[in-house]
Amino acid sequence: MIDLYTAPTPNGHKVTVTLDEMGVDYNLIAVDLGQNEQKQPEFLQRNPNGRIPVIVDRDNDDFAVFESGAIMLYLAEKYNKLRPADMKERSQMMQWLMFQMSAVGPMMGQANVFYRYFPEKIQPAIDRYQNESRRLFEVLDRRLSESTYLAGENFGLADIANWCWVRTWDWSGVSPEGLTHLQRWLDQVGERPACKSGVTKPERIKDPDELVKHARNMVQR
Amino acid sequence: MIDLYTAPTPNGHKVTVTLDEMGVDYNLIAVDLGQNEQKQPEFLQRNPNGRIPVIVDRDNDDFAVFESGAIMLYLAEKYNKLRPADMKERSQMMQWLMFQMSAVGPMMGQANVFYRYFPEKIQPAIDRYQNESRRLFEVLDRRLSESTYLAGENFGLADIANWCWVRTWDWSGVSPEGLTHLQRWLDQVGERPACKSGVTKPERIKDPDELVKHARNMVQR
Repeated sequence: MIDLYTAPTPNGHKVTVTLDEMGVDYNLIAVDLGQNEQKQPEFLQRNPNGRIPVIVDRDNDDFAVFESGAIMLYLAEKYNKLRPADMKERSQMMQWLMFQMSAVGPMMGQANVFYRYFPEKIQPAIDRYQNESRRLFEVLDRRLSESTYLAGENFGLADIANWCWVRTWDWSGVSPEGLTHLQRWLDQVGERPACKSGVTKPERIKDPDELVKHARNMVQR
Repeated sequence: MIDLYTAPTPNGHKVTVTLDEMGVDYNLIAVDLGQNEQKQPEFLQRNPNGRIPVIVDRDNDDFAVFESGAIMLYLAEKYNKLRPADMKERSQMMQWLMFQMSAVGPMMGQANVFYRYFPEKIQPAIDRYQNESRRLFEVLDRRLSESTYLAGENFGLADIANWCWVRTWDWSGVSPEGLTHLQRWLDQVGERPACKSGVTKPERIKDPDELVKHARNMVQR
C-alpha cells in the first residue's frame, strides 16, 4: 500500500490525480499546513525539504519519495502505467513534465505569493510573475496547437502535472483568454473522471482563520 | 552526433558536464543571449519556450530535446550511462534532480534577477529569494551529512544538476558558510575532470556591453 501525505494544493493534486488515473488504492494522510506539520521532525524524515506531497511505499521497505514529479515517475515505473513505451514519446513526456516543474509551477507559485500572500503589495514583482506565467501559458498553447496532448496523441503525466497548475489560473491572477488550444485542453483533461476526483482530495480548508494561517506558511515555502 | 545549443549559464553547464562525464563527442553551438537568438523562429522550432540548453540528436531523426533535466535523462538513457540500475537509487537520483529543477534553480534564478538584473532595488524580494536559497542549501547539507553524494554513494546526475547551480552562490549573494557537508561536496565534485571542463563551455562573455545586454534579456526569462 502507498501512504500519501498531502494537502489540497496543485502539487498535491498531481499525485492524487495520478493515483486515480492508475486505479491504484492508497492511504491518504492530510497534512495540516496551517499547523506547519510539514516542518516537524517526523515529516522531515520523509522529506528533508519539509513540503508536501510525499509518498511512503509500505511494500518497498517503507521507501519515501518526495518532489511531486519524482513521485509521479516512481508510480509510473512501479505500476507500469502512463509510461510511454516509445523513447521519443517518453522524452516528450519528460520535457513537458520538466517544463511544469521548472517553470509553470515556480512562476505561478511566485505569482500567488506576491498577488495573494505577501505582507506588502509590490506591483513590479506581481507584474513580473503574472506576465511570465502568461508567457508560459502561450508556450503551452502553441504546443497544444500541434498535438492533442502535451507529449503527443496520448494523455499522460505531463498533462496531469501542467493541468493541476494551469486550472488554478484565477488564483494566480493570470488569464488564459484568447488561448483557444489551451482552453480546449483544459476542458478535455478536466472531463476525465480521475481528474475530477483527484482534485477533491484531501478536502479543501473551509475555516477562514485556518486558510489565513495556511497562506502565511505558504510564503515561507 | 549530438548538436548542443547552449550558453555559459548553470543550466547550460548541466549538459556540457553531463556529456563530458559520459565521454560523448558533441557539436557545441554557442547561442548569443545578448542578441536574443533563443527567441528567433528557428530556435523556437527546437524549443517553444525559447531558452537554452537544447539538443538535437542527428542520429535519431533530428529529435530535439529541451529542459536541461530532460536532456540529462535522455542522454543517460541513450548512452546507458549515469543511470542507476537499482530502482531505489534511480528514484533518489530523480528526487534530487527534481529538487534542483523545481527549487534550487528557480529560487537562485529569482535571487539573481532581483539582486543583479532588476531595474529597481526591491529589498523584500531580494531577501525572500536569498533566504529561500540559503534554506535549500541547508536541505542539501543535511542530505550530504548522510551520504557522499545526493542519490547515495555514487556520483550522478543529481550531483551535476545541483552542483552547477550551487557553485554560483556568490553571484546570487547566498553563502554556504557553516554548511560543512555541502562545502565538502562542492569541493569533491569540483575536482572531477568533467566538471572542470564542462563549466568552461562555451566561453564566457567578456565584452561588458554584451554582458549588460545578456543580463537584461535574463530578466525576461
